[in-house]
Amino acid sequence: MDHSAFLKSLEGYLVEKRREFHRYPEVGFTEYVTTHRIVEELKDLDFTLTVGKDALVSEERYGVPSAEVLSEAEERAASFGVPSNLLDQMRGGNTGVVAVLDTGNPGPHVAMRFDIDALPILESDEDNHVPTKEGFKSERPGEMHACGHDGHTAIGLGVAKYLHQFKEELKGTFTLLFQPAEEGGRGAKAMVAKGWLDDVDYFLSGHLGIGEHEAGMVAATTSRFLASAKLNVHFKGKSAHAGVEPNVGRNALLAAASASLHLHNIPRHKDGATRVNVGRLVAGSGRNVIADTAFMEMETRGETTELNEYMQTEAKRIIQASGDLYNVETDIEFMGEALNGNCDPEFIDWVKKANEHNPYVKEVYDVQELGASEDVTFMMKRVQERGGKATFMVFPSPLPAGHHHPKFDVDEYSLITAVSTFINIIRFL
Amino acid sequence: MDHSAFLKSLEGYLVEKRREFHRYPEVGFTEYVTTHRIVEELKDLDFTLTVGKDALVSEERYGVPSAEVLSEAEERAASFGVPSNLLDQMRGGNTGVVAVLDTGNPGPHVAMRFDIDALPILESDEDNHVPTKEGFKSERPGEMHACGHDGHTAIGLGVAKYLHQFKEELKGTFTLLFQPAEEGGRGAKAMVAKGWLDDVDYFLSGHLGIGEHEAGMVAATTSRFLASAKLNVHFKGKSAHAGVEPNVGRNALLAAASASLHLHNIPRHKDGATRVNVGRLVAGSGRNVIADTAFMEMETRGETTELNEYMQTEAKRIIQASGDLYNVETDIEFMGEALNGNCDPEFIDWVKKANEHNPYVKEVYDVQELGASEDVTFMMKRVQERGGKATFMVFPSPLPAGHHHPKFDVDEYSLITAVSTFINIIRFL
Amino acid sequence: MDHSAFLKSLEGYLVEKRREFHRYPEVGFTEYVTTHRIVEELKDLDFTLTVGKDALVSEERYGVPSAEVLSEAEERAASFGVPSNLLDQMRGGNTGVVAVLDTGNPGPHVAMRFDIDALPILESDEDNHVPTKEGFKSERPGEMHACGHDGHTAIGLGVAKYLHQFKEELKGTFTLLFQPAEEGGRGAKAMVAKGWLDDVDYFLSGHLGIGEHEAGMVAATTSRFLASAKLNVHFKGKSAHAGVEPNVGRNALLAAASASLHLHNIPRHKDGATRVNVGRLVAGSGRNVIADTAFMEMETRGETTELNEYMQTEAKRIIQASGDLYNVETDIEFMGEALNGNCDPEFIDWVKKANEHNPYVKEVYDVQELGASEDVTFMMKRVQERGGKATFMVFPSPLPAGHHHPKFDVDEYSLITAVSTFINIIRFL
Amino acid sequence: MDHSAFLKSLEGYLVEKRREFHRYPEVGFTEYVTTHRIVEELKDLDFTLTVGKDALVSEERYGVPSAEVLSEAEERAASFGVPSNLLDQMRGGNTGVVAVLDTGNPGPHVAMRFDIDALPILESDEDNHVPTKEGFKSERPGEMHACGHDGHTAIGLGVAKYLHQFKEELKGTFTLLFQPAEEGGRGAKAMVAKGWLDDVDYFLSGHLGIGEHEAGMVAATTSRFLASAKLNVHFKGKSAHAGVEPNVGRNALLAAASASLHLHNIPRHKDGATRVNVGRLVAGSGRNVIADTAFMEMETRGETTELNEYMQTEAKRIIQASGDLYNVETDIEFMGEALNGNCDPEFIDWVKKANEHNPYVKEVYDVQELGASEDVTFMMKRVQERGGKATFMVFPSPLPAGHHHPKFDVDEYSLITAVSTFINIIRFL
Repeated sequence: MDHSAFLKSLEGYLVEKRREFHRYPEVGFTEYVTTHRIVEELKDLDFTLTVGKDALVSEERYGVPSAEVLSEAEERAASFGVPSNLLDQMRGGNTGVVAVLDTGNPGPHVAMRFDIDALPILESDEDNHVPTKEGFKSERPGEMHACGHDGHTAIGLGVAKYLHQFKEELKGTFTLLFQPAEEGGRGAKAMVAKGWLDDVDYFLSGHLGIGEHEAGMVAATTSRFLASAKLNVHFKGKSAHAGVEPNVGRNALLAAASASLHLHNIPRHKDGATRVNVGRLVAGSGRNVIADTAFMEMETRGETTELNEYMQTEAKRIIQASGDLYNVETDIEFMGEALNGNCDPEFIDWVKKANEHNPYVKEVYDVQELGASEDVTFMMKRVQERGGKATFMVFPSPLPAGHHHPKFDVDEYSLITAVSTFINIIRFL
Repeated sequence: MDHSAFLKSLEGYLVEKRREFHRYPEVGFTEYVTTHRIVEELKDLDFTLTVGKDALVSEERYGVPSAEVLSEAEERAASFGVPSNLLDQMRGGNTGVVAVLDTGNPGPHVAMRFDIDALPILESDEDNHVPTKEGFKSERPGEMHACGHDGHTAIGLGVAKYLHQFKEELKGTFTLLFQPAEEGGRGAKAMVAKGWLDDVDYFLSGHLGIGEHEAGMVAATTSRFLASAKLNVHFKGKSAHAGVEPNVGRNALLAAASASLHLHNIPRHKDGATRVNVGRLVAGSGRNVIADTAFMEMETRGETTELNEYMQTEAKRIIQASGDLYNVETDIEFMGEALNGNCDPEFIDWVKKANEHNPYVKEVYDVQELGASEDVTFMMKRVQERGGKATFMVFPSPLPAGHHHPKFDVDEYSLITAVSTFINIIRFL
Repeated sequence: MDHSAFLKSLEGYLVEKRREFHRYPEVGFTEYVTTHRIVEELKDLDFTLTVGKDALVSEERYGVPSAEVLSEAEERAASFGVPSNLLDQMRGGNTGVVAVLDTGNPGPHVAMRFDIDALPILESDEDNHVPTKEGFKSERPGEMHACGHDGHTAIGLGVAKYLHQFKEELKGTFTLLFQPAEEGGRGAKAMVAKGWLDDVDYFLSGHLGIGEHEAGMVAATTSRFLASAKLNVHFKGKSAHAGVEPNVGRNALLAAASASLHLHNIPRHKDGATRVNVGRLVAGSGRNVIADTAFMEMETRGETTELNEYMQTEAKRIIQASGDLYNVETDIEFMGEALNGNCDPEFIDWVKKANEHNPYVKEVYDVQELGASEDVTFMMKRVQERGGKATFMVFPSPLPAGHHHPKFDVDEYSLITAVSTFINIIRFL
Repeated sequence: MDHSAFLKSLEGYLVEKRREFHRYPEVGFTEYVTTHRIVEELKDLDFTLTVGKDALVSEERYGVPSAEVLSEAEERAASFGVPSNLLDQMRGGNTGVVAVLDTGNPGPHVAMRFDIDALPILESDEDNHVPTKEGFKSERPGEMHACGHDGHTAIGLGVAKYLHQFKEELKGTFTLLFQPAEEGGRGAKAMVAKGWLDDVDYFLSGHLGIGEHEAGMVAATTSRFLASAKLNVHFKGKSAHAGVEPNVGRNALLAAASASLHLHNIPRHKDGATRVNVGRLVAGSGRNVIADTAFMEMETRGETTELNEYMQTEAKRIIQASGDLYNVETDIEFMGEALNGNCDPEFIDWVKKANEHNPYVKEVYDVQELGASEDVTFMMKRVQERGGKATFMVFPSPLPAGHHHPKFDVDEYSLITAVSTFINIIRFL
């Protein structure tokens, strides 16, 4: 089978796999079944697979779920049918897999990253939501692939199949990183720490959606990665009967409420875009008790690392002072991180040239503005500081609802657009 | 056995029963096992028992748990061994039991109320906490008898045993109401609606703890019941990616945070004490998503019904306006209520005289200030508006920690103090 | 002229004087003209007068106006016709006068206090406001006798006239303190420090209005004096252009706004009534500049000194933390104070007996609840700690509008009610 | 005298005039003396002068000061020596002057705008502040030329002198607009409404400072004009005695404080930079009175008109809801406005070419980012929509302190840089 015919043959496979992953979403560091399925797809191909604990440095992960959550997920994975030796290799939230293929022919080292985690969102069951209508809606209520990583995983498998098939024609080495826990900026740094990117010449990654165009478009590079910090905040006050002696309490709920309001008050910065969000707040135990505890999940972002640091510095002072307002102790826990990042502009030309005769690509445009955070920046930075070149492409799609929304979905045509683009670049480089 | 000997014989029984209830706490409207146990104790005595759905008007209950919570509790009760016909009688959160004994001798109708529910509090496992040290700590993590209702239930059983035993000597009719869901002011009104208090001449109830004296003291009456309203507030906004398009969201978390702060700002009132508390706040789904929902459990109180209404009026406007601040919809749900109340002052004299030779009572004092809310006020009000007399006594105890605290406990000597006081009043009236 | 006839003759005098003072209000420590007029009335009577600097300890005054304000007021007084030697005696805000009359007959030392200051309120010019209708409205726009101190001053003069007239019949010594700056609790402590109350046997003072009854009623004593602290708060941040570089500023306006909200959040106290008020807030210099300064006038109150201290402790922490929220410096200035206070209950009997045949008094009742602050408590405390007895009476009146309101006014009949009561007590003691 | 010699001769004149204006600053719509001085300088030159009421449409002004402020300023101007017929022409805050010179030679119509107003800032009296050290500090405490408009006015006069001198050599018509009240975006629209810009071919304006470079640099165009709206907000509540009956008040101070906090909470927008500032807040009358009024000066800005409208929409809802929180009425007054604006890019080339041999210009750069608001955008927009070309240049200077700061100052060398640039462009066009 030639290149074109093989790509043609992948079309159905990509859709099928994407839907399979969509039906079984797993949030960051609990992708036990997802990892298992990737391994199943790759194990008979010419790749050397490194799974779980050996694929990352455990201590460098951010925001690992509690032992209780992990052990429950592991039980689930076991009863799903994940073999125990594979499961053991992942226990404690060490999910993900790295697949390496050495063509034997001299040539560059090309790394590609595909993120595999889902989000804690309850998927829409409305009929006009395609996954619901077509019967591949999430089977795990409260978790959902609402950011397209189901597609990213499928794309990674498609690329792998191609590399295996055309190994003889290709040159150099290929490393495919199926990364856990991209959401919250929690997994990339731990894979980087393992050294996978240390001698990479070219780094490719990308995202479905983002830009709202018809499927078939490709952005050669991405700009405006927001540096980001993910923080958990614990407030510890003192409970008291709210009717009998309200003065005795130290109100953690009000401290957290005040922190929330004042965090969203951090002044805009002259040097560029900044963001702050308190996305979750849980406080108090009962209606008639002064709340003695509160818990907050928040994040800051900045168009540059400096802007994000400005936001963090302000945030820390505000959290401390909000505690002081109510005589409540505060504790800040660092949960995740993404860096600012820059794609190498050479890729604008390269991606265009590589795709010149690609029937799945209608147009390549120079750059897509992201305005969000991606921990792929840890990988790009490592490659670039070692002298390699990196890009993060975008494969746009009409979007019935925004990313992280219960009705998020993409046009599946963009799957083959993405796979064919990855492959054409590899052949071009 | 004579009166004194019988009381003596109850001492151990009261402690044993109190500890049994303490070990198995159940929060309001889930007291399936507790009701079952009460029925077990009473079923062979000369009482007519009315259980569950027939003991209250279902529709008049406040703050009934969700169907899911109830059904889980019912499964638990079934597996505990609650007989299915009894359980059927209670399904849907219709807990509690009313026991009536007619002596056959002409005389007044005396009603007594004992509340039986626990609190959603995780009991302390520290060694200096007596229930932990003595091995009768809650076996249901996250629920705890932290307000003494375990003791109240035991007292009710002790009084019942006495009434049965000395039925021949006594006159008139006795109604014992084992009331569910006192916490949050949710159960009393529904029992009143059933008519149990409509022709009562004397109404007696009481509380352990409250006043910090050595055990053996009795307050003949209680003052400063705070009228109270219990409200749940739902905020509905719109989610959005906090990095990509924060302007698109409508932030329910900030609306609820703002409501919390401003509710605690309601001006003090010239006419007396008021209270407000937002005791619980849960908002948002994830760190990087603008929160589209928030949920708040709150309450208001006032030294008079008018003061509580002032607080409610202010609260409703503030909640609405806090929603408007963030373009978020708000919905207020009424969850419970307690009235202001007044004990009939004649009881000061009566309780003193009745206890003149009671060896378990060191001193009777006139009045204990409560400064909290009690839905017993619904019962007192009904009795009084029909011409009956009512009191709510206090049986103080040294308190290692305040009511609703993980280390709350009472001196068990106050159990027999209470039972003997109830009985002596009955004989005196 | 006998006692009754003399009182009769005072009726018109009291109204005339009250209206004269009403027309020319002067706020605390600027009562130059008011003091001058009092001196004019008393200088030919048998009193020893001590004016201004000699009547108080300057350093013990609270909240003295700025040098600029005082010098402007002194110029005004000079141009009004206050003689320069008298004015010199008062310069720098040392207003007020003490008048002592020794009858020569052995007997107790009775002190009486009359406060003379006005408020910074613009008097109503509506026709249904009696002072406007009758033509004695304030001639000094923005200042107004809106708390009845114009009447208090007139009452003091009436009492003085009587003492002078009936000196021969009376026994002991009389000290009349015409006190400046009662509003804000700023003047009494400085007069106490001078020693005027050190050997007083009986202390009498009182207030017009407060209780809303028909004129002619008298409360023999007052309860619920609120202890109070008066604080000014200065916030110092950093200005910046709000469009160009908002992140550079440190926003004093928001720090003060936050402090205001959180101060009103201080929990209610189980032990009794508390109060807090931020009454004035001035911040920022221009619309497009981040505000670098803010200024706040606030107060706390408590039913007891302990409760007021609780409020102050909370307030100080909240102010500091509100500054920290915005990285803004805060400075708290102590501006005034009132104590809790208790009238000696013997006066209930004494005032009733003394007024038994007083035609100007319809009824004496035991006690009027105040629920506000009065720095007369400094004087009462000094008298009582030296073994003397003290009361603060109330002379109620129907009130078209509350105290400190632009339409405040009292029924002038209460003037003679008050004077006759003071005199009858003196004769009774 | 030739072109170069004439420019040389202007150097001292520009410094002298700038300092004269600096010594006598007048805030927007009170520039009576400033206008008078401009007229004095121009009246003997070949310009047709249109002053005050005839130079603008009164009704189109924003944020005109109160009648009281204006009449005080007019008295001041009269006593300064402004002739009464000139003053009459300006009464009511109709300041500013337009000077038109027709060369008689056919050619384009070139308009230039110079803004003349000062700011309500107290100038620094520190020795290292040049105007203080050199003796030309503001003689009007509380008002200051802290944004360089003193220099702009001097530049306008310098340009006028040149046009008069070289009239014969020049072609076309020149309109010089000496505009009042640029600060707050209050004056430009009223001059536009008069039609001065309706048939203009080229429009030139500019600003001293902004970019921090050595003097002698010129930015040919400016980007990032922020659209802006200036709003005054009035809050009307109800006063009450803060000790006696706090519940009776409706607290305007807290409503305004709450509005301030929540306004600064408006979410950042995905489409670009936004700003909000509450720059001034004045609330309440006295410490112990619930504040019944509050007043707020605020502004919104946006990188585009749409972004500014987003901010305004949010702001209006927040203000209303903040009033509702405290049951307080709110009223929003529109006080000023600036538009987004774009310089015609042709000027980049033109300004560079025109300045090729200008000895006062070290370098011309393409564009200076402003990030602030300027009501010159009203003029630019009118010119451009009629087919003319417009630019707004920047003449940078080292800045000892930012714009609107008490120590703001510019290097006076930039005055001649600016004048020579204006003239060279005129000759080039």
